Amino acid sequence: MSGPEARPAGGVVRVGLLGGGTVGRAVVRLLQDRAEDIAQRAGCRLEVVRVAVRDPERDRGLALPPHAFTSSAEEVVADPDVDVVCELIGGVEPSRTLMLDALSRGKPVVTANKEVLASHGKELFDASEAAGVDLAFEGAVGGGIPMIRPLKESLAGERITRLIGIVNGTTNYVLTRMDEDGLSFQDALDEARELGYAESDPTADVDGSDAAAKCAILASIAFNSRVVADDVYREGIDAVRPEDVAAARRLGYVVKLIAFAELEDEDVAVRVHPAMIPRDHPLAAVREAYNAVFLEGDRVGELMLYGRGAGGDPTATAVAGDLIHVARNLLGGSRGRGCTCYRERAIRPMERMEGQYYLLLEVEDRPGVLARIATVTGDNHVSIKSVWQEGTGEEAQLVLITHRAVEGALQRTVRELRELPVVRAVRSVLRVEGVE
Amino acid sequence: MSGPEARPAGGVVRVGLLGGGTVGRAVVRLLQDRAEDIAQRAGCRLEVVRVAVRDPERDRGLALPPHAFTSSAEEVVADPDVDVVCELIGGVEPSRTLMLDALSRGKPVVTANKEVLASHGKELFDASEAAGVDLAFEGAVGGGIPMIRPLKESLAGERITRLIGIVNGTTNYVLTRMDEDGLSFQDALDEARELGYAESDPTADVDGSDAAAKCAILASIAFNSRVVADDVYREGIDAVRPEDVAAARRLGYVVKLIAFAELEDEDVAVRVHPAMIPRDHPLAAVREAYNAVFLEGDRVGELMLYGRGAGGDPTATAVAGDLIHVARNLLGGSRGRGCTCYRERAIRPMERMEGQYYLLLEVEDRPGVLARIATVTGDNHVSIKSVWQEGTGEEAQLVLITHRAVEGALQRTVRELRELPVVRAVRSVLRVEGVE
Repeated sequence: MSGPEARPAGGVVRVGLLGGGTVGRAVVRLLQDRAEDIAQRAGCRLEVVRVAVRDPERDRGLALPPHAFTSSAEEVVADPDVDVVCELIGGVEPSRTLMLDALSRGKPVVTANKEVLASHGKELFDASEAAGVDLAFEGAVGGGIPMIRPLKESLAGERITRLIGIVNGTTNYVLTRMDEDGLSFQDALDEARELGYAESDPTADVDGSDAAAKCAILASIAFNSRVVADDVYREGIDAVRPEDVAAARRLGYVVKLIAFAELEDEDVAVRVHPAMIPRDHPLAAVREAYNAVFLEGDRVGELMLYGRGAGGDPTATAVAGDLIHVARNLLGGSRGRGCTCYRERAIRPMERMEGQYYLLLEVEDRPGVLARIATVTGDNHVSIKSVWQEGTGEEAQLVLITHRAVEGALQRTVRELRELPVVRAVRSVLRVEGVE
Repeated sequence: MSGPEARPAGGVVRVGLLGGGTVGRAVVRLLQDRAEDIAQRAGCRLEVVRVAVRDPERDRGLALPPHAFTSSAEEVVADPDVDVVCELIGGVEPSRTLMLDALSRGKPVVTANKEVLASHGKELFDASEAAGVDLAFEGAVGGGIPMIRPLKESLAGERITRLIGIVNGTTNYVLTRMDEDGLSFQDALDEARELGYAESDPTADVDGSDAAAKCAILASIAFNSRVVADDVYREGIDAVRPEDVAAARRLGYVVKLIAFAELEDEDVAVRVHPAMIPRDHPLAAVREAYNAVFLEGDRVGELMLYGRGAGGDPTATAVAGDLIHVARNLLGGSRGRGCTCYRERAIRPMERMEGQYYLLLEVEDRPGVLARIATVTGDNHVSIKSVWQEGTGEEAQLVLITHRAVEGALQRTVRELRELPVVRAVRSVLRVEGVE
């Protein structure tokens, strides 16, 4: 344990770190390398005094004394020499319990943990409120891109109406390679793994659950109403075929996994799924492992925040920003914005959400086919924006782009189209976003 | 004057507005239309109680009692019923004196005034420091795009090394129309005027001085060292010819007026000028009247903040965010980040700044020309990255793109090239930015 003699003279805020992984190590290095600037900016020195890790004996190449390391996260939280707890373990437990413990001891918490915030956010914010200390989490979404604080503070006067995020670097890398180089999903994913963009088990990236947690966090702040990860309708990218990506490209679109959050009649519509984005939309230029959030507000119009959405160093920048903020508040006896969920909005069920759709049908190549199809769409109140044939004879395909339609009506349409004798197969159904 | 009976029960922070122009009116409307949400977010109500305008009799269509208006800005600042002063007059005087007066009375100031901050920032921050109250200015750069607070707070742990901004909507609109539709500078400017993107006197936009003031503000924050508008080397866009824009397009570039700020050997290099940006750079997609700041940091990598950089409503969003922040601090007895210029960095003279250049030369069409030219560039330590000929005979032109070179060496090169018998004319010299 760091004894009093280890403390520098003058103001110092002592940080207890939970987790010694990539981000944790990057945070330690950042706080040490930039100590002088941080002291100027925080009004005090920031020192990592304890680090809870799985194996305290392992050499992590950090300039910290051996006794700084412990395998007991509880010990770090309880340590009277720790002023601020920085949680970088990830996952729900034990993070939740540790953060609640820290807050109950009056210690501010900085975290980059999207899972626990998207599932137990209310409980954590209530604890932070009760204790009168900060709970900051800029690193939980978008790595180093300032998103949480701009939404909570800079845009506090704005009514955000829609938010479209590319918030998962792995899937964006995979889709970029599929789009630009014609790779298959599996080949692109293997490449992402080799480059370190994908975990050895990339399930949470591929199935959209990582993006869903971030979507819930962003929607909660944007619409001032608690949204949890389970509220978010979710489809992954594993069903996206090279043919869909190529067809999108021919039509002037690019396929992206998007986190979508919108106010629909004051309800919150939240969903994560692959979608076709027009190539001239700012989000279309978000390539490889980059992230971005595109916002629309009543007065501010369109905004986009773009950058590196993951990785140790970018995330460490976000965490350090929070630590500086929290340290300033601790010394000044003040607090930043706490929970901003002062409304209770309903979550709109997926079947009632509105959107545009792209349909690719294999059809008979003969007169009257379009009339049959148009009857089905019309009967279901799905209005067609554009339609054209690709290929002829056995290869005949029909591409349809709809106007905004309700998901339930679209799904009924697809079921009925599948039963039409002139439709040999419904090959693809993809949502279209970002069109005026 | 608003009597006590006009005040609502409960916490209220009373705003005195200086200036009733487009932004001022938009601020009043925003605070009124969104009063309920703002009260939740600020922890108090925000009420505009006084407005200083040129003609208090004129109907501005605002839901404020006639006695709220006065022609005396001094009276608004001195009014004991005014808790926060919101300065939206613009220009150096009387804004500077009014803001100093407000601060000396212990009243926080929110402003969108780039000119006074870029020329008298130190004096104003010193006064804010002495009074212990906030001076907030998110609206001064980039309209509704969160820039100031993300730079000061979210990125407080980061070492920003370079910043390239498109911070003037008028010139970006003009250059977009020249690029996409082949318009001349004058025709594009006339169109911008008709659409309301340009003032009737667009001098400060066209000559780069608006962008230079914003460049000074951004550089001061990014590099923690005071930069004033006069420190910023400046070239406008009036010399940009349709031929340059077309040539840039052929080469895969787009011409933008950029505000550039960089650390060079710990000195600050700041300049505003037209530059060629590669078409696949995120800034190239910033079209029409949009603004963006592209940042590079040691750890965070590349970041971009994008949106509507001007206009009453977007700027009002920034001002309202500041008012909410300032009101929360006022009630909580705390303060936000004050001046962050804790270093004194030298300003690098233009002739010592480094950059890449594009040169368009009219040349004799015969063997040995390139050798003569390459001798001149080589003698001046300007290294050529690529070179090719366009046209033949009387129309022969040589296009050169240099590697990074020092401005002074480049200018000497251009002078010597002009004297070469084989060079008929140096048609264009444009900087190139955003290349790896």
